[in-house]
Amino acid sequence: MSPRLVLLSSSTLLRPHRAPSFLSHRKYHFLTKRTSSQSRTLLPKSTRTTLTASASLSSMASSFYPEKARLPPAAQPPSPPITKFKIGLCQLKVTDDKERNILHARTAVEEAAEKGAKLVVLPEIWNGPYSNDSFPVYAEDIDAGFDASPSTAMLSEVARLLNITIIGGSIPERSGDKLYNTCCVFGPDGKLKAKHRKIHLFDIDIPGKITFKESKTLTAGETPTTVDTEVGRIGIGICYDIRFQELAMLYAARGAQLICYPGAFNMTTGPLHWELLQRARAVDNQLYVATCSPARDAAAGYVAWGHSTLVDPFGEVLATTEHDEAIIISEIDYSQIDLRRTNLPLEKQRRGDLYQLVDVQRADSE
Amino acid sequence: MSPRLVLLSSSTLLRPHRAPSFLSHRKYHFLTKRTSSQSRTLLPKSTRTTLTASASLSSMASSFYPEKARLPPAAQPPSPPITKFKIGLCQLKVTDDKERNILHARTAVEEAAEKGAKLVVLPEIWNGPYSNDSFPVYAEDIDAGFDASPSTAMLSEVARLLNITIIGGSIPERSGDKLYNTCCVFGPDGKLKAKHRKIHLFDIDIPGKITFKESKTLTAGETPTTVDTEVGRIGIGICYDIRFQELAMLYAARGAQLICYPGAFNMTTGPLHWELLQRARAVDNQLYVATCSPARDAAAGYVAWGHSTLVDPFGEVLATTEHDEAIIISEIDYSQIDLRRTNLPLEKQRRGDLYQLVDVQRADSE
Repeated sequence: MSPRLVLLSSSTLLRPHRAPSFLSHRKYHFLTKRTSSQSRTLLPKSTRTTLTASASLSSMASSFYPEKARLPPAAQPPSPPITKFKIGLCQLKVTDDKERNILHARTAVEEAAEKGAKLVVLPEIWNGPYSNDSFPVYAEDIDAGFDASPSTAMLSEVARLLNITIIGGSIPERSGDKLYNTCCVFGPDGKLKAKHRKIHLFDIDIPGKITFKESKTLTAGETPTTVDTEVGRIGIGICYDIRFQELAMLYAARGAQLICYPGAFNMTTGPLHWELLQRARAVDNQLYVATCSPARDAAAGYVAWGHSTLVDPFGEVLATTEHDEAIIISEIDYSQIDLRRTNLPLEKQRRGDLYQLVDVQRADSE
Repeated sequence: MSPRLVLLSSSTLLRPHRAPSFLSHRKYHFLTKRTSSQSRTLLPKSTRTTLTASASLSSMASSFYPEKARLPPAAQPPSPPITKFKIGLCQLKVTDDKERNILHARTAVEEAAEKGAKLVVLPEIWNGPYSNDSFPVYAEDIDAGFDASPSTAMLSEVARLLNITIIGGSIPERSGDKLYNTCCVFGPDGKLKAKHRKIHLFDIDIPGKITFKESKTLTAGETPTTVDTEVGRIGIGICYDIRFQELAMLYAARGAQLICYPGAFNMTTGPLHWELLQRARAVDNQLYVATCSPARDAAAGYVAWGHSTLVDPFGEVLATTEHDEAIIISEIDYSQIDLRRTNLPLEKQRRGDLYQLVDVQRADSE
């Protein structure tokens, strides 16, 4: 018996991967078609008894079908033109004067770029107050072009003039008779590269602390968003989206190197969960996480926690701030993703024989 | 048009749930069979135009198929005999004298019970040193009965005598020619209620910091473990298992109220990730998380971080300790799970139309 046969048999015979019984063999084949290159060689039963635990070591990982822990299997991150760069997080004070807010945001983006940022992130709802009353008033029809959307027109222009990528926080978007909480991504050519509509609306009720129902006015987005930029593949989530670990897992499986969450946590959940969730998403998925909050306005109807932060793929906070206005400049280096994924090879250690995360739309499109 | 029809139509027509294209309609039906009671009523196209965003609010959640975010759909937690109780975490110093370790653990369990603990948790590998050299030496054949396993014999006896439930940390288990890192759960009747073999082996390599390969000697477990006890439904993970968020998600979907992770993080990953991961698992899944580490022995080959901890379903640390020997007594109250799931109804807000976590074995068994 050749050593090769020993390895194959130990990985497949000792822990055969069974299809869930609610899928017939043929049906299950569809779920596994993209991993059909895996060895499923069968050896005579007598061979099994000659196997030892140590003989199976090198093939142990594959017997757990780590690639099946994500459906479709996880994509490797791309090699963008720039893999090491400065990021700027603009923690802005937001007023009820939209024109002022736009000018103020522009100045902040310019300052961040001046300090070397190739990627600039803005806060959630930066062109007007965060409230259900204000969303319709400050909403813009982004798809109708820049004349109908002064906020995104500014982002496009400043991205082009400064030759940077902008994750444009979010503004209320009007589309037909619906309103969304929407993040626009602009490239250095000034073109709109992606538009993320907040998927998980912020509907929470902690009596005496914080009660808010975005769904009173807003409609939830229909799709996760990853965008290829010159500074990497970036997944977008808005605020409450960060609570859903599935979204970050799905972005990592799509090959995202960085997830940006413009967000305005509050004075109850902010101190408890804001940094925790960012660090968890980063370390669990071994990628960068950047958040950008509005500055705190204690007189506002909704008081934001602030504390915009950049976290590295090992879950370490690289840069953060308190609640006042601030422009955080910090460095992202995607080689850290490779390093940490080598240190802790989670992706190869997942148990696709026990759990699978399905990216429904990606599975649908392939 | 009746109001009822408006609601049905807005939830189904505006955001129809599409089957992934790699599954034919009939195949996909298998994936959705347990949720077939959902309304899929179709209204004439002309009806759609009469719908407004506000009309769809009350049915919005269901149009995102939150119950499909887990496959099978998430089970509600049970109503155990005891829903509010004291837990004891025994952070034990472990020596190379097995007999002493067993006696010492017994004394600690007795002390915890004396202080009112109805549930006592022990550390990972508490009957001998944590090392690949020691695992075979200290291993016991648990299935061969108590004569062959003095460590679990003690746990069984003390659980019965003290009328408590014990999550028995872990010991090296010998089974045939294999070794496992195994946690035994004993009920107040002294019976073995569950046995969890560490699913994700600790194979990491952070050069100059910590390198360890459990897979040199150990074999990974084959199945996630939830166990119904008189103090609730408890999911079990051992140390490195905590890094895999899927396992905690799967336990929550099985109705677990508490996840216990006996674990021995180290001086590199301990300060960075130990508390972070516990709090993340608790807040993301809105359940209790308890960890129990050996006390630190700076002279040992593997130096444990310590810091055994109890975290509540809002991610708050209820009790913790430093690295010396300690018995932590703290209180668990499962009504907090209901409270936090009402405050932040994540389960109803998940997007089963976008992502699904499949519990492969549970799906298989139904």
